Amino acid sequence: MPASDHRPAAMIAGGAVFPHRHLTGIEGLQPHEIAFLLDEAERWVEANRTHAKGDARLAGLTQINAFFENSTRTLLSFEIAGKRLGADVVNMHAAQSSVKKGETLIDTAQTLNAMRADILVIRHMSSGAVKLIADKVDCPVLNAGDGRHEHPTQALLDALTIRRRRGSIAGQRVVICGDLLHSRVARSNILSLTALAAEVRVCAPTTLMPPAIDRMFVTPFTDFDAALEGADVVMMLRLQNERMDGGYVPSPREFRLRYGLTPERLKRAKPDALVMHPGPMNRGIEIDSLVADGPQSAITEQVAMGVAVRMACLDVLTRRDRGVEGWA
Amino acid sequence: MPASDHRPAAMIAGGAVFPHRHLTGIEGLQPHEIAFLLDEAERWVEANRTHAKGDARLAGLTQINAFFENSTRTLLSFEIAGKRLGADVVNMHAAQSSVKKGETLIDTAQTLNAMRADILVIRHMSSGAVKLIADKVDCPVLNAGDGRHEHPTQALLDALTIRRRRGSIAGQRVVICGDLLHSRVARSNILSLTALAAEVRVCAPTTLMPPAIDRMFVTPFTDFDAALEGADVVMMLRLQNERMDGGYVPSPREFRLRYGLTPERLKRAKPDALVMHPGPMNRGIEIDSLVADGPQSAITEQVAMGVAVRMACLDVLTRRDRGVEGWA
Amino acid sequence: MPASDHRPAAMIAGGAVFPHRHLTGIEGLQPHEIAFLLDEAERWVEANRTHAKGDARLAGLTQINAFFENSTRTLLSFEIAGKRLGADVVNMHAAQSSVKKGETLIDTAQTLNAMRADILVIRHMSSGAVKLIADKVDCPVLNAGDGRHEHPTQALLDALTIRRRRGSIAGQRVVICGDLLHSRVARSNILSLTALAAEVRVCAPTTLMPPAIDRMFVTPFTDFDAALEGADVVMMLRLQNERMDGGYVPSPREFRLRYGLTPERLKRAKPDALVMHPGPMNRGIEIDSLVADGPQSAITEQVAMGVAVRMACLDVLTRRDRGVEGWA
Repeated sequence: MPASDHRPAAMIAGGAVFPHRHLTGIEGLQPHEIAFLLDEAERWVEANRTHAKGDARLAGLTQINAFFENSTRTLLSFEIAGKRLGADVVNMHAAQSSVKKGETLIDTAQTLNAMRADILVIRHMSSGAVKLIADKVDCPVLNAGDGRHEHPTQALLDALTIRRRRGSIAGQRVVICGDLLHSRVARSNILSLTALAAEVRVCAPTTLMPPAIDRMFVTPFTDFDAALEGADVVMMLRLQNERMDGGYVPSPREFRLRYGLTPERLKRAKPDALVMHPGPMNRGIEIDSLVADGPQSAITEQVAMGVAVRMACLDVLTRRDRGVEGWA
Repeated sequence: MPASDHRPAAMIAGGAVFPHRHLTGIEGLQPHEIAFLLDEAERWVEANRTHAKGDARLAGLTQINAFFENSTRTLLSFEIAGKRLGADVVNMHAAQSSVKKGETLIDTAQTLNAMRADILVIRHMSSGAVKLIADKVDCPVLNAGDGRHEHPTQALLDALTIRRRRGSIAGQRVVICGDLLHSRVARSNILSLTALAAEVRVCAPTTLMPPAIDRMFVTPFTDFDAALEGADVVMMLRLQNERMDGGYVPSPREFRLRYGLTPERLKRAKPDALVMHPGPMNRGIEIDSLVADGPQSAITEQVAMGVAVRMACLDVLTRRDRGVEGWA
Repeated sequence: MPASDHRPAAMIAGGAVFPHRHLTGIEGLQPHEIAFLLDEAERWVEANRTHAKGDARLAGLTQINAFFENSTRTLLSFEIAGKRLGADVVNMHAAQSSVKKGETLIDTAQTLNAMRADILVIRHMSSGAVKLIADKVDCPVLNAGDGRHEHPTQALLDALTIRRRRGSIAGQRVVICGDLLHSRVARSNILSLTALAAEVRVCAPTTLMPPAIDRMFVTPFTDFDAALEGADVVMMLRLQNERMDGGYVPSPREFRLRYGLTPERLKRAKPDALVMHPGPMNRGIEIDSLVADGPQSAITEQVAMGVAVRMACLDVLTRRDRGVEGWA
């Protein structure tokens, strides 16, 4: 498995290396397919550092970002990614959406499809909504987060960050800590990191631990200190405000005491362990500022990788329709 | 009149075939002018089916979509249309608008004008607001729906759909059913379809029937079953939520019983009658899902025609200022 | 000082003429630097009058407009400016912002930075917020208005309007009247106009007059009639709705009587005095319609100058990173 991490894309003929029409989740992707997307993203990491980032490969294509759930970072990241590839990018915000007028999701999907979108980027509050749309439209669909289900580009950007900073993903001990029960970020990361042969530990209070988590090839912990022993990567999850005063967590202060990543606690991990967070952070709750802004933090790097990974996905998913050699 | 439907544009010199500066409504357009816009749209129907839809004829031009009333579909359609022609498209949403700060409509219009828009696409909740703006600015203005007045591009896309599916518009029996009283879609369609020599029947409960409807060269019905006899096209209107619990309609259920398009009722029309709806639909109220998703439905095709028609309008209206031969 | 107004930019080598990385305010700019930006804007004034306004100098660059405070005109103006220069323009609206989720301003800034913005345009409700962001990011930052602090592009567009209409700024008697206490527009204008050697008078009720205003090289008045004597330019400020029923102003009607610009009052200024307002106007409160729409009004011209000035700023601030000769 580790060898596939860096398997060069050129060794495999176009469409065969990534035969999927949509990217609705990490589930169903082969390890070499994940690695292929990471390899593709590498070129955009470099390109984004220059000041003439323009690329015209998606010129004339219409990318619709249909966000039924509010988002700033992810929408911005997809919008920038599409524009840097030359696409005509159009945002459909939930707040303005006909959905409010009682239109069904399928009707909205068919409308976007009839407008001849070339790629749809969908975020939705319901698990499975993106798959439902993908089944109804003629163009590739990219999941930008659906309910508690998946957020595949987040997992890809996290994997790219780890691979670049640690050299490899296979064999790395990754601790994912926080609200696992409601987190599509955690779910996609578990699927991706275990596929790429990382050793994944998950840590949460029992109220926030999914019941069948052990079937996902991870080791569950309720004691964060124990989970951190020998960790190469510590990935903190955002504690949503709505969980803080519910039955899930006694109080933000209590949560921080047991599950917050403080400088002291971080010492239990390897000295050069990577600290990650998908953002936006609750500083002082799941992560302390000293850690978030410290030398081990890869948090802003994750954001940069996000644009690169999304450029790669937009490029790869549209290759068949663009008639790219080996893909058509 | 029917002959003019397919009158080739090339037969008439540029500006003479469509001498209008603005498109504020169907009213005032000659039948051959309407047909000319439909002919122009045909090319974009085909172009939109390819994957390199880019056209640069509006490159360097600024299209401002000033939407004082919320809309998803129409805004999206105009935004996509403009971008596919290479325009710099900028949206001004009502929600962010200075109008909320008490600025007058004329001040807003003059501001957009001073920013040197090359074309303004306006949606407004007040009838006549678009005409008011058109009188104050130096660039072409396109009405994207104003109050109960007009929604000309909706009528054009409906006409294009009918012409393509039925071969011609002249002589077709078109039944428009629903909330005629408040519907700019109905009003623009009546003007357009009667100009193109269709036989137009309108059907609504008396509470939703405009008082002087018979002056519009249509035959009014209150009995939907009777109206449907021999219909070539059945065009359903959206019943706005705010009408359902008002004095207009006893209840949504009652409305559906008398004015909903059910599979049984559709049988009264011609066997190959076309079913249309401007969207978004209230499934189970004005239209049943079996009809909306059935073989006679042209509803998603209408959406596709919408982008093509808007591309044609943006192109044609800016020809004079772009110095296109025969138009300048 | 007056001579520097028209000092040709070509006389000074690139980066030396405008050595600033950011434009966070007028404060800190030398008179010749302000004049340089005005000179640069002149070319865009002309270009914006043609119908092929496209310029590709910012092609491939990402401009993020991060507006933490709602705005229509200024956002629209910056968006149009960036698109006319070929930039990939992306808007981040406050309403969608993660800031609402409790993210810190610095985290948001670092996120935008990590996405490799090439220029950030920031509007924020807190004075100093833009400077704070500028200190944390790798790209040029342009202040689009921060709290009561500064709104430098408004001052530049006002200066350009005056220079074009009056031939020069030096020696002009400019009266700024209205809510000086809360106005970043007034503050930036005072800094700019005094730097360019205008004679600046400010006029407000004592409740709306900043305490140390006389240190800004202006002459304060509470009597508007007296302030207007011999004025070349009368610049009215917007009275925010929230001030009208507070302790600041007895009533809108009372305010208009003492500080509204009526046709009668305008006669106290020079016969050809210029009337200005940053918009949106409260007609009938701080300015009468007869004045706003009269022959002395430069109000819509200000809007046009706004786009030109913003194009100049976007162009100049990115020259170093774009490797423009003499700037790299």
